Amino acid sequence: MRKRYCYSLEMEVRDYELDTEAIVNNANYLHYMEHTRHKFCADAGIPFIDLHNAGIDAVVRKIDIEYIESLHSGEKFTSALSLERKGPRFIFHQDIINAEGRIVTTACVTCVMLRDGKLSRGEEVAQLFKRFL
Amino acid sequence: MRKRYCYSLEMEVRDYELDTEAIVNNANYLHYMEHTRHKFCADAGIPFIDLHNAGIDAVVRKIDIEYIESLHSGEKFTSALSLERKGPRFIFHQDIINAEGRIVTTACVTCVMLRDGKLSRGEEVAQLFKRFL
Amino acid sequence: MRKRYCYSLEMEVRDYELDTEAIVNNANYLHYMEHTRHKFCADAGIPFIDLHNAGIDAVVRKIDIEYIESLHSGEKFTSALSLERKGPRFIFHQDIINAEGRIVTTACVTCVMLRDGKLSRGEEVAQLFKRFL
Amino acid sequence: MRKRYCYSLEMEVRDYELDTEAIVNNANYLHYMEHTRHKFCADAGIPFIDLHNAGIDAVVRKIDIEYIESLHSGEKFTSALSLERKGPRFIFHQDIINAEGRIVTTACVTCVMLRDGKLSRGEEVAQLFKRFL
Repeated sequence: MRKRYCYSLEMEVRDYELDTEAIVNNANYLHYMEHTRHKFCADAGIPFIDLHNAGIDAVVRKIDIEYIESLHSGEKFTSALSLERKGPRFIFHQDIINAEGRIVTTACVTCVMLRDGKLSRGEEVAQLFKRFL
Repeated sequence: MRKRYCYSLEMEVRDYELDTEAIVNNANYLHYMEHTRHKFCADAGIPFIDLHNAGIDAVVRKIDIEYIESLHSGEKFTSALSLERKGPRFIFHQDIINAEGRIVTTACVTCVMLRDGKLSRGEEVAQLFKRFL
Repeated sequence: MRKRYCYSLEMEVRDYELDTEAIVNNANYLHYMEHTRHKFCADAGIPFIDLHNAGIDAVVRKIDIEYIESLHSGEKFTSALSLERKGPRFIFHQDIINAEGRIVTTACVTCVMLRDGKLSRGEEVAQLFKRFL
Repeated sequence: MRKRYCYSLEMEVRDYELDTEAIVNNANYLHYMEHTRHKFCADAGIPFIDLHNAGIDAVVRKIDIEYIESLHSGEKFTSALSLERKGPRFIFHQDIINAEGRIVTTACVTCVMLRDGKLSRGEEVAQLFKRFL
């Protein structure tokens, strides 16, 4: 892994995630990546569900995702991310890396923070993540 | 609907598509859009599964998706698309439009055609869709 | 349809619900059936999400499901149900019927009602559904 | 774990599996259990996808599932199974056990083996699993 990631998670394809072409369906990569972001947050000390209960909802605004290669039945992979802040936007750079070390899917996921349903600057969340930014 | 779409489909949020924030989970929009592309293909006379059986697999290479507003329990919406061809790439411009007529999610979905696992120019598929291009 | 149903819904297989055997994955039938129950409740005048906001959560306790035939890409089907009450239990008898009129999947889904997290007799809910019982 | 299981797998709830009640949606337990069966088969030396390519499809005929307690965000759990054969039927007894050791979901999953689309006695598969039966 050439890039600098601040979090990574070992995962494995589950057969119910495959489609009739026997490759992982495109929507499931978003699931992998969401799970990775949530685990990252939980590890950083603040589970998403606690944020939600505290009135702060992280909402995905934009995803740019490239599918380079496919994942198949039983494949193990690494889901890795780094985090960048641009004003009120938190941008997760996320890669899915196969067992041979190739990036098979890469995405930029832009999140914003809503406080009681309204767009916030995300200062509390930025504080929590400052060591990763 | 201001834009020119070549296909649209009436759909409705299903509660299992919601997450704990009571909004449709981001991955499900890819499901809505995939279903719309497949229905469009079927209506244009060639189901995806037949293409697959004929050795041609349409593979998604890139998705740029913006989440503008959220969909909630029971909401009805329209999933619409237009199609553009750029060399070997088929680009679906896809919008999810709520009952008030606002675009709540918009995406560019870039597909390529594999013939027996190898990248093709997609000429057969382009022929099939020529009246939409 | 020989049986007496109190609600039915026209649906269609979506390709992302298929697995590598090109048949609908077993878990998706639970999605179809849940969606049908929720639509039934909404049509009966009380959306599940409103019940939830009122502190009443319908929770599934038991599902006995038989898979008789498979559904394939693009198939249209009818999802139908009838409702029975046994003490605190609400039992949905649910069938998935294909376009030829054959029952392809049949299930008994037993629900109970929690009020503020505790098991209730479900009297309010039974009132709402009394014309179906 | 009181019971005798022949296979178990450590898993963890992913937030996209939760519904608006913040508990794992009922259909996802079938996903957990399917993944466990497939991992068990792979570990026993024969991946499901290889069976499929060899013309043998394991098809789920019946699932009786009881939901005793709910799983929540971030919970770790064990998915365990034992296997029984009754004539042409392979019955998986599957439990989901939470971190405190309580069975939160229990199911009987009945599978049959199709060879080239027709019901078989499943002798080849029984051979493969004989040490577990």
